[in-house]
Amino acid sequence: MPKYRKLLYFYFLFFLLYGVFYKFQPIDLIRKYFGEKIGLYFAWLGLYTEFLIPSSVVGIFVFLYGCITIESDIPSKEMCDQRNAFTMCPLCDKFCDYWNLSSACATARASHLFDNPATVFFSIFMALWATMFLEQWKRLQMRLSYFWDLTGLEEEEYNTSIILKLTNLYISLQIMLTFSAVFGVIVYRITTAAALSFSTNETTRSNIRVTVTATAVIINLIVILILDEIYGAVAKWLTEIEVPKTEKAFEERLILKAFLLKFVNSYAPIFYVAFFKGRFVGRPGHYVYVFDGYRMEECAPGGCLMELCIQLSIIMLGKQLIQNNLFEIGIPKLKKLFRKLKDGRTELKEMNTNQSKDPQQWDLDYSLEPFTGLTPEYMEMIIQFGFVTLFVASFPLAPLFALLNNIIEVRLDAKKFVTELRRPDTVRAKDIGIWYNILSGIGKLSVIINAFVIAVTSDFIPRLMYQYAYSQNGTMHGFVNHTLSYFNVSHLKAGTQPENSPFAQDILFCRFKDYREPPWSPNQYEFSKQYWAVLSARLAFVILFQNLVMFLSVLVDWMIPDIPKDISEQIKKEKSVLVDFFLKEEHEKLKLIESFITRDKHKHKSGTKDQRSRAASFCQFNQSQKGSVASFSSQHTEV
Amino acid sequence: MPKYRKLLYFYFLFFLLYGVFYKFQPIDLIRKYFGEKIGLYFAWLGLYTEFLIPSSVVGIFVFLYGCITIESDIPSKEMCDQRNAFTMCPLCDKFCDYWNLSSACATARASHLFDNPATVFFSIFMALWATMFLEQWKRLQMRLSYFWDLTGLEEEEYNTSIILKLTNLYISLQIMLTFSAVFGVIVYRITTAAALSFSTNETTRSNIRVTVTATAVIINLIVILILDEIYGAVAKWLTEIEVPKTEKAFEERLILKAFLLKFVNSYAPIFYVAFFKGRFVGRPGHYVYVFDGYRMEECAPGGCLMELCIQLSIIMLGKQLIQNNLFEIGIPKLKKLFRKLKDGRTELKEMNTNQSKDPQQWDLDYSLEPFTGLTPEYMEMIIQFGFVTLFVASFPLAPLFALLNNIIEVRLDAKKFVTELRRPDTVRAKDIGIWYNILSGIGKLSVIINAFVIAVTSDFIPRLMYQYAYSQNGTMHGFVNHTLSYFNVSHLKAGTQPENSPFAQDILFCRFKDYREPPWSPNQYEFSKQYWAVLSARLAFVILFQNLVMFLSVLVDWMIPDIPKDISEQIKKEKSVLVDFFLKEEHEKLKLIESFITRDKHKHKSGTKDQRSRAASFCQFNQSQKGSVASFSSQHTEV
Repeated sequence: MPKYRKLLYFYFLFFLLYGVFYKFQPIDLIRKYFGEKIGLYFAWLGLYTEFLIPSSVVGIFVFLYGCITIESDIPSKEMCDQRNAFTMCPLCDKFCDYWNLSSACATARASHLFDNPATVFFSIFMALWATMFLEQWKRLQMRLSYFWDLTGLEEEEYNTSIILKLTNLYISLQIMLTFSAVFGVIVYRITTAAALSFSTNETTRSNIRVTVTATAVIINLIVILILDEIYGAVAKWLTEIEVPKTEKAFEERLILKAFLLKFVNSYAPIFYVAFFKGRFVGRPGHYVYVFDGYRMEECAPGGCLMELCIQLSIIMLGKQLIQNNLFEIGIPKLKKLFRKLKDGRTELKEMNTNQSKDPQQWDLDYSLEPFTGLTPEYMEMIIQFGFVTLFVASFPLAPLFALLNNIIEVRLDAKKFVTELRRPDTVRAKDIGIWYNILSGIGKLSVIINAFVIAVTSDFIPRLMYQYAYSQNGTMHGFVNHTLSYFNVSHLKAGTQPENSPFAQDILFCRFKDYREPPWSPNQYEFSKQYWAVLSARLAFVILFQNLVMFLSVLVDWMIPDIPKDISEQIKKEKSVLVDFFLKEEHEKLKLIESFITRDKHKHKSGTKDQRSRAASFCQFNQSQKGSVASFSSQHTEV
Repeated sequence: MPKYRKLLYFYFLFFLLYGVFYKFQPIDLIRKYFGEKIGLYFAWLGLYTEFLIPSSVVGIFVFLYGCITIESDIPSKEMCDQRNAFTMCPLCDKFCDYWNLSSACATARASHLFDNPATVFFSIFMALWATMFLEQWKRLQMRLSYFWDLTGLEEEEYNTSIILKLTNLYISLQIMLTFSAVFGVIVYRITTAAALSFSTNETTRSNIRVTVTATAVIINLIVILILDEIYGAVAKWLTEIEVPKTEKAFEERLILKAFLLKFVNSYAPIFYVAFFKGRFVGRPGHYVYVFDGYRMEECAPGGCLMELCIQLSIIMLGKQLIQNNLFEIGIPKLKKLFRKLKDGRTELKEMNTNQSKDPQQWDLDYSLEPFTGLTPEYMEMIIQFGFVTLFVASFPLAPLFALLNNIIEVRLDAKKFVTELRRPDTVRAKDIGIWYNILSGIGKLSVIINAFVIAVTSDFIPRLMYQYAYSQNGTMHGFVNHTLSYFNVSHLKAGTQPENSPFAQDILFCRFKDYREPPWSPNQYEFSKQYWAVLSARLAFVILFQNLVMFLSVLVDWMIPDIPKDISEQIKKEKSVLVDFFLKEEHEKLKLIESFITRDKHKHKSGTKDQRSRAASFCQFNQSQKGSVASFSSQHTEV
C-alpha cells in the first residue's frame, strides 16, 4: 500500500464510527488522492446521509404516532368488532364464499400505522426537506469549489436536445419491456390467486392473499434486479451508438438513459399498486375480466396504502441488501478470484524467468480491480432518494432504512475505493453535473405523487369528509358502514354465485367497498353522489397540497442564499487584494525600469552598490510573485 | 440641447416607426448617455414589446375563432331560441318579475367570443410565452452585460428576510383598505340595482344591469387610480421608516412594497369577479342576504366570464389611457408650467442684475424636470404584464392592447427622457434586479389562475361533461336545459314573491342556473350528483392543466441555454488570450531584467546603443499594456 493510501485507510478506519457524515469525512484527503470528482461524490453522500438523520427521526415519530393512536382509531375498531356483521361479497367467482369484514381486522389495524393524519404532515415535511437538501448542497458545492480552486473551472457545453431517433426507439422498447414485466407479475397474481382458490386444502385457501402477495413481490424484486443489470448495459450500448463528441457528453447521455430505464424499472410496480390496482375491478355482478374469466385484482380491505407500503419496503430493502451485499461485495470478490486464477498461470511462467524479485507496489496494485466510474454509486443513491421522497406518504420509515443502508454503504464504498480498486485517474469537476438536475426533478415529482398518494390511495380524505359532512354526531362512528355499498345477491350473474356457501340461503345483500347507489335506488349500482363529492374533495386536496408545498419550497429556496456569506465575502476580498497587487507590481516595475534608465544616463556618476542590490531584490520579489500570478490565471482559465 | 442629446433625439425620431422593438433601438447610444440602468430598461421594454407581437397575433386568431364559430354554437342558439321558453326565477325579491331566458340572448352570444375551446389553447400558449420571454431576457441580459463590460460587476448583498413588523402591519392595513374599497363597490352595485328596480320607469328598469355594471367598473377604476398614487407614497414612506443600509436595498424594498400594494389594488376587483361573484348567492327560496334584505349579486346569464372580460378590459384600457395620457404627459406639463411661473418671478429680478447674457445650456437644462427613478416605468409595465398573463383566458385581446399601448409608451418615454427630464445620474447595473423575480413570480401565478379561470369561471368543463357524459346523442343540444334547475314557486318565502307579475298564476316552476335536485326529489334543492361530477371534472382539469404547463415550462427552460453560445465562446476565448498575455509578459519581464543584470556584470564591455533602445521599447510596450491590465482587473472587481 502506498503511503498516502495507507494514511487514507487509517483515516477511514478511525472514522468508522462517524465517517458517514460530511463533517467527519477526511474530504480534503480524499480529494487530494482521488481527485475532485470522487471528492464531490463523498461530500454529497455525506451531506445526504446527514440530512437523512432528521427525516429518520421525524419518520419514527410519525410511525410511533400511528402505533399509539391505533387503539383509539374508530374505523379499525369498527372493522374488528365482531358484532358489526358486514357480510362482504365473494372475492372470486364461484369458489369464494361470502366473508365477514371482521376477518380483515389485522390488515385494517396495520394500515392505520401508515394511514393517519401525521402522514400528511410528514409528506409536506419531506418535500421541504428535499428542497432544503438541494439548497444546502448548492452551498456546500460552492464552498468546496472555492476551497478546491474550482471557481473558474470551465466545462464544455454542448447541445443535448438532439438525440438520435434510433436510441429513443430502443428506450421505448425497453420501457415497454418493463411494463410487460409488471403486467406479467399482475397476471401471475391473478391466475395464482384463482388457482389457489380452487384448492380444497383449507389452510392454503385462507393464506391465499399472503402467499400471492409475498411471492409476487419477490418475483418483482428479482425482475427489477435482473433488468437493472441489462438496462445498464443497454444504456451504455445506446450511448456508444450515438457517438457523443466529448467524454462529458458521453457520461451525461449515459446517465440520462440509464436513469430513465432504471427509474421506470424500479418504480413501475410501485406506481401500479399506488394508482391503478383495485381501480378497474368493476362491481359485483359486473366485474371487469382480463383474458377469460379472471377478475381484475383488488386491494386488501385495509386499503391499497398497506399493500403499497409492503411493496415499497420489500423492494427498497431487497434492492439495497442484494445490490449492496451481493453485487458490490460478492461480485468484485469473485472477479478478483477469477483474475488471480488467470494470473496464477502467467505468474508461473514469469516465476521461472524472474525468480528472485520481491513483488513491487505496481505489481500489487495491478492485481486490484480497475475503477469503472462513479455512475453506479450515484445511481444507487438517486434511486434511494426516490424511495425516500416519492412515496414517503405511504412509508414514513423509508428515511430510516435509507440512513441505515448508507451507514454501511459509505464504509463499503470507502473500503472498496481504498483497498480493492486501482487508483482511478483523477478527474476535475466543478459540480455533480446532471445528477443535480435529476435530484431536483425527483424533488418536484415527489410533490405531486405524494399529493395523489394521500388523496387517492389513502383513506384520509374519505375519513375527513365523513367526519365533517356525513357523520351524524361529528365522530367517526359509522364510517365503515358508510364506505360499503349494498349489492343484491340475486343480481349475481348465473354461474358466478358461490358454490359451497353454507349460509347462501340467509343472505339477501352483500357489501363491497365503493360509493355506489343501493339496489333499491332507481339508478342502482351507479356511482352515488358521495362518490363524486369525495372525488371532488380528493382532487381539491391535490391542488391545495401541491400549491402549498410549491409555495413553501420557493420560499425556502429564496430564504437560503446560494453562496454562503463567508465565501462570497472572501471572494470579494481576494479580488480587491488582487487588484491592489497588480497595481502595486506595475508601479514597482515602472520605478525599477526608470531607475535603470536613470542609471544608464548617469552611468559613470552614481553606479552605487545600493542600487544594484535594490534591483536584485526586486528581481527576487518578482519571481516569487510570478508563481501566484500563474496560479491565479490558471485558477480562472483551466479548461 | 447638448450635441449627444440632439443625436439621440434624432435617432428616436428616426426610429419612430420601429423604435419600439429592441432590435431597432439605439441601445448603445442610450446606454452611453443615460447609463446602464436606463439602457437595460429600454432593452427590456423593447424585448417585451417584441414578444407581444406573436401573442397579439395568436390572440386575434383566437378572438376570430370565437367570432366565426358563434353561429354554430348550439348553447347560445338554444338560449336565443324563442321557442325554448325557459321561465327564469326573479332576479330580486318582490319587485322583479319572472323572465324569459331568451332575453339574455345577447350576452350569451357575446360570451361565446371568449368562452370557447381556443381559449384553453391560448392559456397554455401564453404560459409558455411567459417562460420563453423570461428565458430570452436572461440571454439578452447576458449579452448586454458582456458587451457593456458588466460581467464582473459585483453588487452588494444583504438580508431581505428581516422586515420590520411595523411596516408589515401598515401594509396589511393598506391591503384591507383595498378590500374594503372592493367591498364598497359591491355594496354600491347591490344597493343601486335594488334601488333602480323600485323605479316605475320601464326603460330604467330594463337597463339596470348595464347601468350598474358600467358605473361600478368606472368607480372601481377611479378608486384604483387614486389608491395607486396613495400607495406609491405610502410604500416610500414605509421604506424610509425601515432605514435600509444601501441605496439598492432601499430601492428593492420600496419596489416590493409598492408592487404588493399596487398588485392587490389593480387585481382585487378582477379576482372578485373571476372567483367569488355569483358563488354565494344561495338558491331561490333560500337566498343569501347581505345587511338587511339585499341579495348577493349574481353573474349575468351568459356566465361570469363575460363580466370578467368587461371588468378586465375596462380596467386595463382605462388604467393605461389615463395613466399614460393624464399622468405621464399632463402632470409633467403642469409641473413645468408651475415651475416656469415660479421661476418667472426670480428671473425678473435676475434680469435687472444680469441683462446682457444669453441663456446657457445649463440654464435651459435646469428648467427641465428632475429624474425620479425608473420604478414607476417598470411598475406600469409589470402590472400590464399581469393583465397579459394572469387572466388571459378570459380576454385574448389583452396582448394586442398591451402592444398598442407600448408602441405609444416607448415613444412617450423616449421623448420624456430626452426632452423633458434633466439628464439623470448614470447608474451601473448588471441586471433588472428584483423586477425579474417579480416577473417570474407572476408567470408562475398565471398558470394556476388561468387553470382556475378556465375550470371554474368559464363553462368549458360543463360543456365538455355534457357532450361526453350526459348528452343523449353526443351533441350539445339540450345543454342549456341541463344546466338549469327547477324551483317550485310555491316554495318562495312569503313577501318575496313578484308583486306585479302578469303571469304569476300560470307558473308552477321557475328555473335557475345551478345543479340542484328538483322539487320532486326526496332531497329537494340539495346539490345534485351532476354538481359533484362537474366539480370533480373542473378540479381534475386544474391539476392536469397546471402540471402539463409546468412540465412544458421546465422543458422550455431546459432547452434554451441561459448564456448565448457565441457569448460563452467569446468569453472562453478571451480568457485564454488573457492567460497567454500574462505568461508572455512575465517572460518578457524576466528576460529584460536578466539582460540588465548581464549588462551590469559586463558594464564596460558591451553597453551598446542597441540594448538601450530595446529597454526603452519594452518600457513603452509595458505602459501600453498596463492600461489593458487595469481595465481587466477593474472589469472583474468593480464594486
